[in-house]
Amino acid sequence: MRRTIDWAGDAIVIIDQTALPSEYRLLHLRTVGELVDAVKRLAVRGAPALGAAGALGVALAARTSDNVEADAELIATARPTAVNLAWGVERAMKKLPQGGQAVLEEALALLTEDEELNKAASAHAAEVVLAECPRRPLRLLSHCNAGRLATVGWGSALGVVWHLHERGLVEEVLVDETRPLLQGARLTAWELAQAEVPYRVQPDSAAAAAMARGLVDCVLVGADRIAANGDVANKIGTYGLAIAAKHHGVPFVVVAPSSTVDKSLADGAGIAVEERDARELTEYAGVPITPADAQVFNPAFDVTPHELVTAVVTEHGRFRP
Amino acid sequence: MRRTIDWAGDAIVIIDQTALPSEYRLLHLRTVGELVDAVKRLAVRGAPALGAAGALGVALAARTSDNVEADAELIATARPTAVNLAWGVERAMKKLPQGGQAVLEEALALLTEDEELNKAASAHAAEVVLAECPRRPLRLLSHCNAGRLATVGWGSALGVVWHLHERGLVEEVLVDETRPLLQGARLTAWELAQAEVPYRVQPDSAAAAAMARGLVDCVLVGADRIAANGDVANKIGTYGLAIAAKHHGVPFVVVAPSSTVDKSLADGAGIAVEERDARELTEYAGVPITPADAQVFNPAFDVTPHELVTAVVTEHGRFRP
Repeated sequence: MRRTIDWAGDAIVIIDQTALPSEYRLLHLRTVGELVDAVKRLAVRGAPALGAAGALGVALAARTSDNVEADAELIATARPTAVNLAWGVERAMKKLPQGGQAVLEEALALLTEDEELNKAASAHAAEVVLAECPRRPLRLLSHCNAGRLATVGWGSALGVVWHLHERGLVEEVLVDETRPLLQGARLTAWELAQAEVPYRVQPDSAAAAAMARGLVDCVLVGADRIAANGDVANKIGTYGLAIAAKHHGVPFVVVAPSSTVDKSLADGAGIAVEERDARELTEYAGVPITPADAQVFNPAFDVTPHELVTAVVTEHGRFRP
Repeated sequence: MRRTIDWAGDAIVIIDQTALPSEYRLLHLRTVGELVDAVKRLAVRGAPALGAAGALGVALAARTSDNVEADAELIATARPTAVNLAWGVERAMKKLPQGGQAVLEEALALLTEDEELNKAASAHAAEVVLAECPRRPLRLLSHCNAGRLATVGWGSALGVVWHLHERGLVEEVLVDETRPLLQGARLTAWELAQAEVPYRVQPDSAAAAAMARGLVDCVLVGADRIAANGDVANKIGTYGLAIAAKHHGVPFVVVAPSSTVDKSLADGAGIAVEERDARELTEYAGVPITPADAQVFNPAFDVTPHELVTAVVTEHGRFRP
């Protein structure tokens, strides 16, 4: 399987996530402008993959730009919530005094590490799930996409599914479709289908009913930013899911590489939440869904207080605030 | 404003709810088959409107059918969860021995009553909201569509908004889009726009985040069936919303005519929940959303235990189990 984001000679190559599941298409990004556009319209998304995009973006700027500093700033701020984007940019920028090749090598090292760290984090999380959930095989619930498409490879929350599936321990994954951009229905379902893991797609609003029916042993999600106290910013809907999980006594496990932890934030109250375009809610495939000129409330993320989280797991194991 | 469902000479006339908000279109249903089809594909939906459809359906059968009993059974069972459908059929059938005209008159009486009862129920509920929520003006949260399009006219949960808006007490209605069929985005938003009530459409999964931000004073929903103990079957997502409301101390008010109460059911465990077609989740406007052959979990309703409900309000006031 190819990486979600990689370097190919003179360009950043990404799997275009706006085209899936209908079409598997690669995009070659040859300018910082093309990269920033791809990040903004979520052709590449997912906190760990954005870390890679940040680092590779600096490598691209170092080869093509007259003002790498300014371009680095553009990349780092293309989306406000994911801390990994700025983290990847910063890490690559430290190598800039040593030249473009050193920047590229640092970015590629970050890509390799991302795969390894997510594989390690999800292996730790798999053990947490097995310890928290007595039932075998497991029925897991996934929100948004925290799979290989959200990372360079392997995945974080969905990485747990791969580990458990390899051991024959997964009965089914219930996949929240994840409105408005349907990353669950389009991307997580696609990854599960590719891996031949049984799954069912559900409306986000059916998750609580699934828990009430006893269909969910554990909820697994990724994270876009984690505060020092363990509060978690993640895809809109994560918070409601955590409340419902607590209500039903269902374990709620967050899986992310430690680069997602922002130690400069004491708690989730300080996390800036991106508001996205109204058209994500007012039309689909060009068909109007709402009356013309409808106003929307369309936050990309919400913040789940640490009290509702059973465990945040990184490559170092359970995160201790 | 014309009724959502009415009689016109030789046919049942409905506002085609599958065409809104793009197109305001009337359908003339001249056979029981056409009516059953319209009910199944939700061209007419909403528990009170289905009561009217049941009664008018019998009137149609009495004029056109060789076997009114069999047709009545077809109509009553066109959808499994809404008790009102069978209730409307039964009420009209009692007049069958007196002939088709008597059946039609009974059905028309039911339509008039529906408007009156919903107006009364929502007036009572408006008082409950004012008593439960100190803030003025009010920020209300709506799920699915329990407006005039869900009834013959006026509406149940959204009827509360009309009463409060007439008194200048509504700041905004947050409208859950209500996947998969988007009754909130398409129908509730359309009704609010028509009535010039400020509103914002949100993903269903944003409701908990809106509560956490202090944007919601009260949740208002309708009901498809209410058990004798006050458990409420309503559109999928209602249950998760009720859990989130409880978590935030936000009042959760259910508004429905008393015909929605099924005294034969001791509690919500006995309510049959309709599972709907996979295509509601696997495609939109003909565009695939999921991988081909994706399995789905697509229950049309969920059951909210009475403990999570602040008040169930009918035309008689607060419902007492």
